[in-house]
Amino acid sequence: MAFHYPNGRRFVPQAMEEKKSPLKKISYSNRGKTLEDDLNETNQYYLAHGIAVIHKKPTPIQIVDVHYPKRSAAVIKEAYFKQASTTDYNGVYKGKYIDFEAKETKNSSSFPLKNFHDHQIEHMKHIIQHDGIAFVIIRFSAMDDIYLMSSEQLSFYWKRMKEGGRKSITLQEVESSSRKITLGFQPRIDYIKVVDSLISENF
Amino acid sequence: MAFHYPNGRRFVPQAMEEKKSPLKKISYSNRGKTLEDDLNETNQYYLAHGIAVIHKKPTPIQIVDVHYPKRSAAVIKEAYFKQASTTDYNGVYKGKYIDFEAKETKNSSSFPLKNFHDHQIEHMKHIIQHDGIAFVIIRFSAMDDIYLMSSEQLSFYWKRMKEGGRKSITLQEVESSSRKITLGFQPRIDYIKVVDSLISENF
Repeated sequence: MAFHYPNGRRFVPQAMEEKKSPLKKISYSNRGKTLEDDLNETNQYYLAHGIAVIHKKPTPIQIVDVHYPKRSAAVIKEAYFKQASTTDYNGVYKGKYIDFEAKETKNSSSFPLKNFHDHQIEHMKHIIQHDGIAFVIIRFSAMDDIYLMSSEQLSFYWKRMKEGGRKSITLQEVESSSRKITLGFQPRIDYIKVVDSLISENF
Repeated sequence: MAFHYPNGRRFVPQAMEEKKSPLKKISYSNRGKTLEDDLNETNQYYLAHGIAVIHKKPTPIQIVDVHYPKRSAAVIKEAYFKQASTTDYNGVYKGKYIDFEAKETKNSSSFPLKNFHDHQIEHMKHIIQHDGIAFVIIRFSAMDDIYLMSSEQLSFYWKRMKEGGRKSITLQEVESSSRKITLGFQPRIDYIKVVDSLISENF
């Protein structure tokens, strides 16, 4: 279910709001906010409050052609999106290496595994081998329900698919094998709280 | 001083060599190899040998215009290079968060501080506050000498510049305030060895 604040408007920190165009400024709900937007705000909150330093990596691009006009900035004239070989987010929390991927689905009964790639599953396995903390944050956008699933659990479902099993994780499976993240005021998606409980249980 | 192998040719792992064009395949020296190339090879070596998982982040790009031709991949038609808000490399080593920037200069008597940005110095300070390991790898390309300098040391020189002091770090200062990385066969730039000694001294 969607989560609404008293006046129906979600809080946006001043600094962030100013960066946006005046048109976007008058949005009064969370509709259209992507998981990425919410995570970026959360990470800014963590950084500003000295909780963690976690950033989204830039989108990997294959640059083919760049023009260098006189007296102005270089312009990329031809480039293509590349598939990421790692996950999108990483950083440090209490000295520990944190690494995760975030994906959302419009599907309301299961989470399609096609949202991930072999490279990413492989990458997360490497992180675990080196005592880092790796997980995925998945969002069912229809209900605005967000879960944190450990990379070990995701690997289990990935392997099942590779062995001919189902190509998605059912909502029931997600519920039983990951932690739901309660949506908050600020930070919006307080995933570090869940990471904390994972650390105290497993490390 | 430049470092040469018996036959004057540096070792290139098979898998990497195959990716290159036939023209590049017959290069017999390290001339033209950038610090980035050497670090990417080193990181691949670390990954393949289970030593560490460290990746270079993609170059941050501001995308302005994308075309979606029928039956082929999306083409970015207009984009610009953005200044990075973090450092270029990060990852995990023995559970610890590793973060660094790598820069080279053609200058042979000092290292210009204009190679770094306020954002990056700030970012590295945050990493240290969260018990991560942050440093810079700097290369004097004229001599092919490579040093690892802690972010604390770099901050010292940065502050000196901000207070009106010199805009570079002299070679003597670099020599006395950082560790020289001995260039090797494989891995090429074994910086993790230096990180190891930093960890055993400070943590």
